Amino acid sequence: MSAKFSFQHLASCSQTKARAGVFFTPHGPVETPRFMPVGTLANVKTLTPAQLQDTGAQMILCNTYHLHLQPGEAIVAGGGGLHKFMGWNGPILTDSGGFQVFSLSEMRKISEEGVTFRSPHDGQIINLTPERSIEIQNILGADVIMAFDECPPYPASREDVEAATQRTYRWLERCVVAHQRSDQALFGIVQGGVYLDLRCDAAIALTKLDLPGYAIGGVSVGEPPELIAKIVQATAPLLPPEKPRYLMGVGTYREIAIAIASGVDLFDCVIPTRWARHGTAMVQGDRWNLKNARFREDFTPLDETCPCYTCQNFSRAYLSHLVRSQEILAYTLLSIHNITELIRFTQRIRKAILEDRFLTEFAQWLTPESGECSVDKDSGLIED
Amino acid sequence: MSAKFSFQHLASCSQTKARAGVFFTPHGPVETPRFMPVGTLANVKTLTPAQLQDTGAQMILCNTYHLHLQPGEAIVAGGGGLHKFMGWNGPILTDSGGFQVFSLSEMRKISEEGVTFRSPHDGQIINLTPERSIEIQNILGADVIMAFDECPPYPASREDVEAATQRTYRWLERCVVAHQRSDQALFGIVQGGVYLDLRCDAAIALTKLDLPGYAIGGVSVGEPPELIAKIVQATAPLLPPEKPRYLMGVGTYREIAIAIASGVDLFDCVIPTRWARHGTAMVQGDRWNLKNARFREDFTPLDETCPCYTCQNFSRAYLSHLVRSQEILAYTLLSIHNITELIRFTQRIRKAILEDRFLTEFAQWLTPESGECSVDKDSGLIED
Repeated sequence: MSAKFSFQHLASCSQTKARAGVFFTPHGPVETPRFMPVGTLANVKTLTPAQLQDTGAQMILCNTYHLHLQPGEAIVAGGGGLHKFMGWNGPILTDSGGFQVFSLSEMRKISEEGVTFRSPHDGQIINLTPERSIEIQNILGADVIMAFDECPPYPASREDVEAATQRTYRWLERCVVAHQRSDQALFGIVQGGVYLDLRCDAAIALTKLDLPGYAIGGVSVGEPPELIAKIVQATAPLLPPEKPRYLMGVGTYREIAIAIASGVDLFDCVIPTRWARHGTAMVQGDRWNLKNARFREDFTPLDETCPCYTCQNFSRAYLSHLVRSQEILAYTLLSIHNITELIRFTQRIRKAILEDRFLTEFAQWLTPESGECSVDKDSGLIED
Repeated sequence: MSAKFSFQHLASCSQTKARAGVFFTPHGPVETPRFMPVGTLANVKTLTPAQLQDTGAQMILCNTYHLHLQPGEAIVAGGGGLHKFMGWNGPILTDSGGFQVFSLSEMRKISEEGVTFRSPHDGQIINLTPERSIEIQNILGADVIMAFDECPPYPASREDVEAATQRTYRWLERCVVAHQRSDQALFGIVQGGVYLDLRCDAAIALTKLDLPGYAIGGVSVGEPPELIAKIVQATAPLLPPEKPRYLMGVGTYREIAIAIASGVDLFDCVIPTRWARHGTAMVQGDRWNLKNARFREDFTPLDETCPCYTCQNFSRAYLSHLVRSQEILAYTLLSIHNITELIRFTQRIRKAILEDRFLTEFAQWLTPESGECSVDKDSGLIED
């Protein structure tokens, strides 16, 4: 690992594989386990960087695919790189665009070289390869960049997933060669779909490349939560303990807690901001539709124990009024709360791990629920 | 005037009727002349109270008509009154609903008693009278409340305007009787359309009621800016100098400057926030569409001399990117800037008046321009 990045292991749970640590980056530390808010188009939807900072956010995620299409990496670089352009001086991670190319693009053609697709902005033909994705990410300038991977859908045949997983490995080797900046850490991504032996093979193969961090990708594409749990339980422990582990596109309280119990450190998901824009608050494990009649005259805060700006200043009745009136401020205030809530959830788990109380305190969250599923699949340009 | 309200006259321009002062309210002082941001539905669209405070906002305006329909004054009162409900501890003014009833409602019936109309929310028949408007405003609890007036359209016959103006006066007498709270100041509204003699008669009649403040209403309803200027020039000097004067629903740099030169102290308009939501920035008297190609790679702030959060942290290129991407954050950042800009404009004028430099420094703004017109007429429920 470059001297600019290091992972400090602080404590391990004595009953699960959960761990607490610190991931150091050129733009500051990330206390793990930690939820990372999603800032698709160089902003976490509805929030200023000042508001985002107040949620407790440390590392945030931006999307290479979206930023390449609009405004284009050259403009981000012209603005001094992603941090300066968007006014976020904390750590940033960019995904590689792989997930979006496979889930959003029409007219997609995959070859060993890379992927060709039509831009939803102007219909232009765009060619994305491992080299091009890394080049774009080098230009954007995030602290952590992700390998360009092939992300098979769910369901997919074992044969197709095996081919995609092997290609992802060959593409990763090309990413390593293409990567140019020592102030950026390139993470590899374990694919393998729901086939646990493919996942394990991939994890072991990737580990040999001695990358500064590893991610588990290709989950949250429509498979049931029990399968996500199984994939993570099988894969995470095989990844090198001295490196950060990142579960991509997850998720809910439950999915996060289960992954932490398997040794995962980092998470991202659009749920807190997307739900906020639908008038939904995340409160102590529940989700509340603020349009519900019971909130109309409820003058208590969303959560009396929550330190966020929203809970400190406004009542459920006021939020309900704003949601009913379709006021943009509703989405901002709910985004502030929801992100704070999910970050606090990972902070509370971290503290419990440091004090070895994780299993006793969070046992209720450690069984997957079939009803709950983080759906990252249908994300469009506006919708994160 | 109640002991809780007073107007301190600090300076007069030696060449115009412009004046600088302080209007004291139970929730703090308002340095005049001053622009008041509009917070229709108990929020200034897209902004938190903290962001609003940073723009330099002192008094803000909320709409009785809109708040009566949603969430209803009982819920606002249940939340501790308007200040506490919306988290704004500075001065607040509510309009009476008169303007909205006349410009927005369908199925409207006017009688001497009041106005009957159909709620656009649920089709329910609503009856608004001077007494009812004041009762609602007493319940909402703003610092300044406005008399319920009949606001004739433009154009309208002299006969119709005369009848409306006389009815407005009779309604004002009923408002005075109905008003119950000494911690709220009731302002009268001068009507009279574009008929200057009617305006003058109304101003003189209202003055005899010795109210704590006076407004000029019924402008910005589609008439050319030259006429607004003439109305204000004829009316404002007739209003008592020891009371604050408020020009309702105005406006642009030019309309504000002209009104200040006639002795007006307070202004409100939806332009800064509405334009922001259309991707338009107000910069030193100009208006810029951020989608314009020239901003795509312009890495300077909107206005280097502006102290607002937006100008201190973001480039035109970033704002252009957000507007092109239809990101809500664009509207927040532009609202912050536009409101700051218009308040700073009135602050700069105030300083110039205090130093008797107003006419020399602001001469360029003192002629009405036919192209520029503050359109408050078409405001709908969502659109302020």
